[in-house]
Amino acid sequence: MAEVRPVEGKPTRSPHLSPGRRRWRAVLAYDGRAFLGWQYLAHGPSVQEEVERAVAAIAKEGGRIPVHASGRTDSGVHALGQVIHWDAPDTLRMDGEAWMRAMNAHLPPTVRVLQAEEAPPGFHARFSATGKHYRYRILTGPVLLPQDYGLAWHVHGRRALDVAAMTSAAAIMVGEHDFSAFAAFRRDGTDGEVGTGANVRRLTQAAVRAEGEALVLDFEGGGFLYRMVRLLTGALVHVGRGLLDEAAVADLLACQRGPDGRVVKSPLCAPPDGLTLMRVDYEKEWDGRG
Amino acid sequence: MAEVRPVEGKPTRSPHLSPGRRRWRAVLAYDGRAFLGWQYLAHGPSVQEEVERAVAAIAKEGGRIPVHASGRTDSGVHALGQVIHWDAPDTLRMDGEAWMRAMNAHLPPTVRVLQAEEAPPGFHARFSATGKHYRYRILTGPVLLPQDYGLAWHVHGRRALDVAAMTSAAAIMVGEHDFSAFAAFRRDGTDGEVGTGANVRRLTQAAVRAEGEALVLDFEGGGFLYRMVRLLTGALVHVGRGLLDEAAVADLLACQRGPDGRVVKSPLCAPPDGLTLMRVDYEKEWDGRG
Repeated sequence: MAEVRPVEGKPTRSPHLSPGRRRWRAVLAYDGRAFLGWQYLAHGPSVQEEVERAVAAIAKEGGRIPVHASGRTDSGVHALGQVIHWDAPDTLRMDGEAWMRAMNAHLPPTVRVLQAEEAPPGFHARFSATGKHYRYRILTGPVLLPQDYGLAWHVHGRRALDVAAMTSAAAIMVGEHDFSAFAAFRRDGTDGEVGTGANVRRLTQAAVRAEGEALVLDFEGGGFLYRMVRLLTGALVHVGRGLLDEAAVADLLACQRGPDGRVVKSPLCAPPDGLTLMRVDYEKEWDGRG
Repeated sequence: MAEVRPVEGKPTRSPHLSPGRRRWRAVLAYDGRAFLGWQYLAHGPSVQEEVERAVAAIAKEGGRIPVHASGRTDSGVHALGQVIHWDAPDTLRMDGEAWMRAMNAHLPPTVRVLQAEEAPPGFHARFSATGKHYRYRILTGPVLLPQDYGLAWHVHGRRALDVAAMTSAAAIMVGEHDFSAFAAFRRDGTDGEVGTGANVRRLTQAAVRAEGEALVLDFEGGGFLYRMVRLLTGALVHVGRGLLDEAAVADLLACQRGPDGRVVKSPLCAPPDGLTLMRVDYEKEWDGRG
């Protein structure tokens, strides 16, 4: 549900595991610069298309084997801990290690499987997820190095960003709020109604850390609205530039309405460049770790 | 002279500064993945072409303004400290800062000017250079992350590389040697003759450092032969894998001859991916730093 692109129709839960099949899950890293996002699109490259092509080539079934992700990252957004699952015939004599190697042999170097294992039959990469960790990287030096292009937001001005102010503002974002002001309008018009709880989410972490000329912003929570991390980041950069104060951020979190009666949206959306999906959390019963 | 591609004819010193012109120098970073190397080539993208296009657009002279680099990095090799110079009409009211900004506005994001300043009239990016620092990055984890693709050599095997053995072998490379065994044959046949001193170079540093799953190799010296850093790196990885011992490295440094009477070449050349030109050194009189 994080960084979701507009969908046609409602997503449905994938059917239960069919007889003769086993469910696999994997942790995926990808370079968002190479893709229009996770979701399959007819008009350009998607991570999903690459992964489904690899799974089909390995399973040799002829037909498409759908691969489900924890959420549909946007165009240009990166992942180091995306989680996916798919069902494959149990006649395949492969363990997780074999899947990892085979997938990496079929995938382009811009997509890597970091780990793969058999999943419990009821596991679903999206519906079993209980939380996510996103990281946003900002570089503030005078020149963006070529190697960082597309991997960070370059924010440089005469005055340095006020990291202390950003840290305070980030702290008031933590907790349960109606984040309508930090959700982009969906093209399909399914904007959650304020007051109905549709846009209520719980942020468990929003932290700002300076590392030399880099600023690293970490956001963790149970769920994120469309472009929410980028809108929260944009607001914090506005705070760092002195264009928005803590009271204004509190107003945004309180869903203030404008003259047209609509919720006032946060003024700045950060580009996808600096955003990485770091980790997806699952309940202990689904958790492959440890 | 480091990592030089075959040249037709001998390079000539650029003429002295013409009247009415000023000489500029700059420190350049580039992502080697986007280019066939520094040098202009008719059949593909080069850093030189991009830089000369930017200089010409800024100087608005109509003709080509040649830009000279400290050396011609190979296809896929990166730079964080390449040094270049060019002469521009002194009617241009620009200082180094203005050149830096204007060049970065004209260059693609894969090439960045990190610093620019007026150079002394006799300064030459190549002929005034007294030394260079190259860094080679190796990643040894099981999977190469998409973000590192093309920026490191992925060396992974069942056994970890023996870093202690690599460090000892690197130490014996330091000093003045005939590095003929660590020079690729040039296509134009101008291989330096052993014993004539043509391939004698002085390495002042060859160091191996482990940083988590990365190995960082640093090479500093007065000059490097064609593909020398990559051949030294390849030899050290062979040492790390136990395929070459210290005595064999000493033999290579002693220019042992094979049955055909030719110098035995080091057996492995590292790919360009992990190589970065970090810094070019100049005598104090030419040194813009400090």
